[in-house]
Amino acid sequence: MPAIETMTDPSQAYRGAKVLVTGGLGFIGSNVAIRLAGAGARVTVVDSLDPTCGGNMFNIDPVVDEIDVRIGDVRDPTLMRDVLRGQQYVFNLAGHISHIQSMDDPFNDLELNCRSTLALLEACRYVNRDARLVFASTRQTYGRVDELPVSEDALLRPVDVNGVNKMAAEWFHLVYNSVHGIRSLSLRLVNTFGPRQLLRHARQGFIGWFVRLAVDGDEISVFGDGTQIRDINYIDDVVDALLVAGANDDLMGGIFNLGSPRPVSLEEFVRALVRVSGNGSYKLVPFPDDRKSIDVGSFYTDYSRFREATGWEPKVELEDGLARTLEYYRQNRERYWD
Amino acid sequence: MPAIETMTDPSQAYRGAKVLVTGGLGFIGSNVAIRLAGAGARVTVVDSLDPTCGGNMFNIDPVVDEIDVRIGDVRDPTLMRDVLRGQQYVFNLAGHISHIQSMDDPFNDLELNCRSTLALLEACRYVNRDARLVFASTRQTYGRVDELPVSEDALLRPVDVNGVNKMAAEWFHLVYNSVHGIRSLSLRLVNTFGPRQLLRHARQGFIGWFVRLAVDGDEISVFGDGTQIRDINYIDDVVDALLVAGANDDLMGGIFNLGSPRPVSLEEFVRALVRVSGNGSYKLVPFPDDRKSIDVGSFYTDYSRFREATGWEPKVELEDGLARTLEYYRQNRERYWD
Repeated sequence: MPAIETMTDPSQAYRGAKVLVTGGLGFIGSNVAIRLAGAGARVTVVDSLDPTCGGNMFNIDPVVDEIDVRIGDVRDPTLMRDVLRGQQYVFNLAGHISHIQSMDDPFNDLELNCRSTLALLEACRYVNRDARLVFASTRQTYGRVDELPVSEDALLRPVDVNGVNKMAAEWFHLVYNSVHGIRSLSLRLVNTFGPRQLLRHARQGFIGWFVRLAVDGDEISVFGDGTQIRDINYIDDVVDALLVAGANDDLMGGIFNLGSPRPVSLEEFVRALVRVSGNGSYKLVPFPDDRKSIDVGSFYTDYSRFREATGWEPKVELEDGLARTLEYYRQNRERYWD
Repeated sequence: MPAIETMTDPSQAYRGAKVLVTGGLGFIGSNVAIRLAGAGARVTVVDSLDPTCGGNMFNIDPVVDEIDVRIGDVRDPTLMRDVLRGQQYVFNLAGHISHIQSMDDPFNDLELNCRSTLALLEACRYVNRDARLVFASTRQTYGRVDELPVSEDALLRPVDVNGVNKMAAEWFHLVYNSVHGIRSLSLRLVNTFGPRQLLRHARQGFIGWFVRLAVDGDEISVFGDGTQIRDINYIDDVVDALLVAGANDDLMGGIFNLGSPRPVSLEEFVRALVRVSGNGSYKLVPFPDDRKSIDVGSFYTDYSRFREATGWEPKVELEDGLARTLEYYRQNRERYWD
């Protein structure tokens, strides 16, 4: 792998390569697809535009003429066998990420995280055992932890249905890697923000919702006392991580935390947001009941395993990321919420 | 909880209680149902008699007039709401346990372990939040381990789809315990043998299959060099453990290994089987490919957490358990194979 000083653009490894992005109209998927298309990869995205997920056709507006868009369900074996043929890389970013939705409708969460992953892996098994798969797992699989920072050796003790299903989906990848030789790895993402996130409602995480409130100049309610610590990544750094991982065969079969060199408290994050925005305000409010039971308190990772294996480090400063994010939604507000 | 010397019959705690056993026509479920019926519990069993599972009407022959048998699918919400009303205890023993089958048909394994568990828990959430639930998890969730004996603090690194789905099903119980207050715990069972096991084929574990070969006087093929160590429990001890656990509110929300004070090598086990049987023979053969990739080598647990919490210890000696088992199948051979 390139050392850190040369890791300026991991998308170069994908020039001319055939790449499939599941959930490619969603937040992370569309950012991956745009970066890869810009680097000269031959990109196909599959997305169901399921109304409970984050897909949005506008997300791929900059590259819509350069990539192949297949609206369809990852659980459809015929579709998946068709789109998988000849792909060299698969970024598996389809799925549900809402903790609250997963508690309301656990069956849907099971379908969209577990069955869809098995459908992808089974299709690989039948038509394409050569592709490299990168799965976007989540820090949510850890649940509440005893020790900070959290390394990959910490027990997984998920506190909601979404965390359980993401844990299972991660391990399906690793089982298919070891049993069927379908090269796969899992990155456990931390809180991620940036352009192209679903902001229609507050159910996909607090960060995007806070950004929307800041754009609209509304007051932000921070649950709890604001001292909970999180590591927060800007989307471009996460795309870097996914691309570096997929291009590195030595990492296959592995699990890697992402993270940040400078975790922040929720209050620090919101203060920076309000400052950069020049708009909005915030207050601290008690947790609502349905959120308290699945809140995990402070959380940040040790991501040295991934950093040492790849040279990856987050590069975008928080305020810089916030400025880019606010600018994007101000220009495209009507594409993301009323 | 009763101390060890008084823990002679944990079924006494269930006299007059309403108890539901899912998978109640299967190996472990039917043994639980028979013990509970004998202790004066009011027992309902639900079982789909799915041909890929271990259900067998003959298993409950001794108590068929004393218990309520509902043939149906745990995934059916109408059925589950109906049978759950008023139950004080639920032993959730439905599900798939075959590692090999789970790799052949991962979707079916997902349905019968994950969706069925969610259906049970959702039904509890809607009609019965007072029942205590005991889930039978498995050592298979640990996969290959770095250290022996294996405590509950070891990472779960399942090596097959069944192990992943059992891990998810276990955590669904724990999430519903903490979020919805539906009192649940998980016992991680080790290899279990005894009367009422599915012996039609070899796909539900080597022990039952070896017993069948011994009854028939056939040669037993032990995969590998026979030195792999396992902790093996006789069914009556496992039933004790399940009943002790369900009656102990202090254990709810917990995870507990079962295990054995005297783990044995596969060759020792088979030698004992051949000796007690007075019939049959064995040989060591290389692993077939499809088994080697999901074999976990030697495995035995530290079960002190459960022993200290409940006083439970396996009481049945290996040769005694084998004698009872062989006697049962000799008397009822035609109900289990051919």
